[in-house]
Formats: sequence, structure tokens, C-alpha cells
Amino acid sequence: MRRIFVIGIGAGNPEQVTVQAVNRLNEVDVFFLLDKGEAKDELVRLRRDILDRYLTAPTYRVAVAEDPPRDRTAADYLGAVATWHQRRADVYEALIRDEVADGECGAVLAWGDPTLYDNTIGVLNTVLERRSVEFELSVIPGVSSVSTLTAGHRIGLNQVGKPVQITTGRQLAQGFPAGVDDVVVMLDAHCTFTGLDDDDLDIYWGAYLGTPDEILISGRVRDVAEQITAARAEARARKGWIMDTYLLRRTRS
Amino acid sequence: MRRIFVIGIGAGNPEQVTVQAVNRLNEVDVFFLLDKGEAKDELVRLRRDILDRYLTAPTYRVAVAEDPPRDRTAADYLGAVATWHQRRADVYEALIRDEVADGECGAVLAWGDPTLYDNTIGVLNTVLERRSVEFELSVIPGVSSVSTLTAGHRIGLNQVGKPVQITTGRQLAQGFPAGVDDVVVMLDAHCTFTGLDDDDLDIYWGAYLGTPDEILISGRVRDVAEQITAARAEARARKGWIMDTYLLRRTRS
Repeated sequence: MRRIFVIGIGAGNPEQVTVQAVNRLNEVDVFFLLDKGEAKDELVRLRRDILDRYLTAPTYRVAVAEDPPRDRTAADYLGAVATWHQRRADVYEALIRDEVADGECGAVLAWGDPTLYDNTIGVLNTVLERRSVEFELSVIPGVSSVSTLTAGHRIGLNQVGKPVQITTGRQLAQGFPAGVDDVVVMLDAHCTFTGLDDDDLDIYWGAYLGTPDEILISGRVRDVAEQITAARAEARARKGWIMDTYLLRRTRS
Repeated sequence: MRRIFVIGIGAGNPEQVTVQAVNRLNEVDVFFLLDKGEAKDELVRLRRDILDRYLTAPTYRVAVAEDPPRDRTAADYLGAVATWHQRRADVYEALIRDEVADGECGAVLAWGDPTLYDNTIGVLNTVLERRSVEFELSVIPGVSSVSTLTAGHRIGLNQVGKPVQITTGRQLAQGFPAGVDDVVVMLDAHCTFTGLDDDDLDIYWGAYLGTPDEILISGRVRDVAEQITAARAEARARKGWIMDTYLLRRTRS
């Protein structure tokens, strides 16, 4: 039987890898790498740094495949995502069938925690449902960028006894969620917080979390929105990519 | 200057500790332990197991203090929690002042991720605001029980592009949150899911996550609610304590 691991490797600091992840990494025969063809060489380097640092016998193989493009202009967002999901399943199905021998172990490395806004687990479950290749799927949890954000700001994710919502920039653009005072926003390339009209809202923003390039900015949204937007644009231009997330917190007095 | 670390140690599996946490553990002079006086000897043993496993020079001290009791019968829930918060701040203030010398390092170990439904960071910020003892606070993020739950069930925490809410049993008892189809429930001693009247709701439940005693049960709430309630009661009686959490997922067809 083939075994496939999805391994959370933390938010970007190689020391954020768990001992469990290190042990699993050392069982892997083939690492799958979906090449996005983007200028994110630094992310490839960070991944390689983790392998170099923790593999005791560097005898692994790397199987690279092209990440299917996603139609980001489609009017039907969910339809475009569903199509992309099936194409990614095609890619992983072929990788597992062609690159992993019976009894071997393949793995996908995932930034942060693999269960949060990453479709790899869902795609691999789709491959399993197709029943064309058999394998045993294991998921190794990791430290999420959300935990790294709040740790960096030295605050709790939730206020006492209160709920927290984790959402996307796309969702936030529809309005601040009902029934919560604390909202974590991921995948927001448009600084959606700048459009919020609420004087009682604090923001805890972070980019390149856990890495030497980490940037943390916090304060009232109305006071620091411009500072964040400028810092984000500057860092993105300088490094060629950015990964950032933020917590919006309404503290009712 | 004193340094105080709040270190996330994962959900219960000693291998879920990060390399960063291991490095920080080895810098600690004094570990603070708030004794809850409960029958959770196994949790003390698990903590000790982590120290035994990862400390290269076991020269640390342990400073034990009594955890102030929280009035769980008070009509004013938030008031009772605020009082407890201040009393815990008294305890940590005394521990830091009396047990940590200048230049030394103290630490609190937190299950899962310290920023999620754990008031230690908030309490230590309160101590800082009092300005009676000076110290530098650092938070080391950990793998949360939420990530461990979804990894165990091999599912994503979110559905594609959709928000997720993390909340408490107390909040869920007020009704299923508005605007979300995915809700993680923590701190629910009352199996609040049994009172939900929704035929389209799946549950992914887990207890003792990441440990050899891990129990995972999933299915339609209406189909598995009794099974979970029975398994929970049996395990709690046998072990004397339980830590569990669950995800409720509405999949609209």
C-alpha cells in the first residue's frame, strides 16, 4: 500500500516544524511539488531549507508537476474553483500512480496548517474517491499563520468566552460578519479593511509571519490602515511576493 | 531583564512540540505550574514527559502555585471571569517577582496553541500593565486542538472560500451562529450538539486528540449524537477527565 502524507510545516520559520513532522519527513520517498510558475523562489528555498535541516538521510526524490492554472477572471467563482480542484486531482492522481511505488511514501508540504484554506486534503480525498489509485492518507497538523499572528502580537485569538470567525478577504468585502467581534482575514490581496467604516475596530496585521522579514502593525483601523497599506505595497514590491493575514477586533467599552 | 515565555506544546502528543518550542524550553530556568487540584494527574505526567524528552540539561526549577478557584455558579459570568483573571494576575505577579531572578527566564506551558481559549497571555499582559514587575513577554505558537481535530478526520477546517467560526459550548447553546456553515465548538461539557435541530448537519468529534487514547467519531449529528455522548461519558468515567472538541459542518446540496 502507498502512503501519502500532507505535512504542515508552519508559517515560514523552519523552527516552527513539529517533531512529528520531522519524523514523518524522514519516512518520505517522494516529495510532490506543484510548480506555480510564480516568482516565489524564496518559498521554494524555504521548503528546501526545511528538508536540508531535518532530513538525516537525504535520499528523497522530488516529483515536480505544473500546478493547473485557476481561472481568476471567471464570473462563476465556485465553478472555476471546482474545475481547478478536479484538475489538481488529475495531477496528484498521476503523481501518485507514476512516482510512488507500492510500499513507498509520498508527501505534500503545506505552509502553516494544512487544514486551513488549503485544498490539498480535499483534492487528495477526491483522488481517493475516484478509486483509480489506492493509498493511505495521513495529515500532520502544523502551526497555522493565525496562531503565529496572535503569538507575534502577544494577544489571545479570542476575547473571553467569545467566538472568533476566520474568513477571507472576498467574504469580508460583503460586510463585517454578524454575531462576532473578532475576525481573522486570510487571502486578502485588496486590503479590504480599508473599506470598513467602524471607529471601534482594532487591527493586528502581520506579514512573512515567523520569519526574519516579519512585519507586525497594530492599532485602530482608522489610525493604521494607511501605514499597513504602504508597508504591504513596499514589501511586496521589494520581495516579489507577500503572505499576510490580520485580526480585526471590536472591543466594546 | 526577566524573560517570560508562554509556550504552546501541542494538543497532547509529545511529538507535536515544535523545534522552536524545544529550543525555548531549554532556555527556561523556572517553569510555572498552576495546580488546579483536579484529578488530571495524567496531564501533569504528559507535561513532565515533554520536559524529560526534550530538555538536554534538566537543571530547571518548577514553581507551583494554587490556581485561584473560579466561581462557576455566579449569575454574572463575565464578572466571575474578570475576578478570576485578576486573581491569576496576582499569582503570576508573585511568581515572577519571587521565583525569577533578573536575567532569568520563566515559562508557562500551554496545551494546544496558547492564543486560543487560554487566558494566560491576557493575564500576563495584565501583570505587565500593573508595572510592579518588569519582564519581556514572548509567545511561542503551538499546534492547536482544532488543527489536530481536522487532521485526524483528514478534512479541511473550512469549505472552499467559506468562513469558519470557533466558539464555545456556552455560545452554541444560544443557537447555531448566523452566516456560517462550519463551527468549531470548544469547552463544551454539555454535548450541546444534541440539542441542534438540523438534519443537514455533520459532526466531526474528537477527544484526547493526538494521543494514543484519541477517539474520533463523525457522521450526521442525528445519526451519531448518541454514540458520541456515550463514548464521551464512558471515557471520562474511565480516565477521570476529558478534553474534546468538534466541528459542525452544514453541507448544502
